Amino acid sequence: MAYRIITVSRQFGSGGRSVGKKLAEKLGYAYYDKELVKQVSLATGFAPEFIEEKGEYAQSRSKLSYLFTTVGTAGVMNGMTAADYLYTMQRKVILDLAEKGDCVIVGRCADYILRDRPDTLHAFIHAPVPYRAERIVRLYGESEQSPEKRLADKDGKRRVNYEHFTGRTWGAAENYDISLNTESIGEDACVELLYRIVKGE
Amino acid sequence: MAYRIITVSRQFGSGGRSVGKKLAEKLGYAYYDKELVKQVSLATGFAPEFIEEKGEYAQSRSKLSYLFTTVGTAGVMNGMTAADYLYTMQRKVILDLAEKGDCVIVGRCADYILRDRPDTLHAFIHAPVPYRAERIVRLYGESEQSPEKRLADKDGKRRVNYEHFTGRTWGAAENYDISLNTESIGEDACVELLYRIVKGE
Repeated sequence: MAYRIITVSRQFGSGGRSVGKKLAEKLGYAYYDKELVKQVSLATGFAPEFIEEKGEYAQSRSKLSYLFTTVGTAGVMNGMTAADYLYTMQRKVILDLAEKGDCVIVGRCADYILRDRPDTLHAFIHAPVPYRAERIVRLYGESEQSPEKRLADKDGKRRVNYEHFTGRTWGAAENYDISLNTESIGEDACVELLYRIVKGE
Repeated sequence: MAYRIITVSRQFGSGGRSVGKKLAEKLGYAYYDKELVKQVSLATGFAPEFIEEKGEYAQSRSKLSYLFTTVGTAGVMNGMTAADYLYTMQRKVILDLAEKGDCVIVGRCADYILRDRPDTLHAFIHAPVPYRAERIVRLYGESEQSPEKRLADKDGKRRVNYEHFTGRTWGAAENYDISLNTESIGEDACVELLYRIVKGE
């Protein structure tokens, strides 16, 4: 059986997004990343930028911020925090997209949300810190923070977000069908391996 | 470049040992599991059964057991606990075997011990609990404990041992080049995928 859906979870800067995109092209499957943000924006009314920022990076909530976000919008969000409401809507969009058909979905806890679908392959893409540090500077440029700090910050937020909503350990191999190191395996070889698994070759 | 050495770490009952053995046969590489125990036995004087039991399953040490193991054998082991001494000798044997040439090594923190060799591929093999529970009963028979309890015990000990000697999180995808779920991918397909990566195909 060929897999109909592939979820790609990834460490920041590992090239997971790129692997997901190339895989979708090779398979002729839909690719959901920005498109997913657009759909969540339509469903929630939140700005795409807000969803990009918060959709995978929920902050740890202080009591104060909890009060602010819930009191201000209690009517719409049934007393949920903005982060919880966003997760709920993202989950709904992901479940709908999965119903629609063949696709690759990057990030956003899709591995967890679609964990019970047997037609779904769950991949985790990672790479050592020096490789990712070099890569983000090359792709996104320098910033005030060191690349190592940027990696730790972004992965730290993804970890908190993932663990909050799934109760699982972020980056544990057992959450996935396959995990690959893009530095040692190579980005294109990762695409090729995943393609073969999806096709059952 | 073809990889010369493959380390296979695994959850208990996942079929990782079997994947390692089949891979070694397919590649024509040496396979070290029992053989490694034999060599550690020759180097340390410990009985093979003791090495099998303790080599990957160091108990958390109480002060009392620490005193017993160190005082009783201080001359030979320079004040190390039996577990630490065994690890040191296992490490030496693994480094020597890696020098000798093409091989597959199962377990025993070999992924960590050989982490700096670029000619080494590190694989982690895992599977969901129900699959492993069914498999251990089929292969090793029933016991007084439930299979789920046996899995939790054995993996718990491997985790403590691994984290004690390596400082890494056991089962984290980022420790490995590739991690595979034998239930979803299939044992033979895992062997095939690893074979292709080793050969650079």
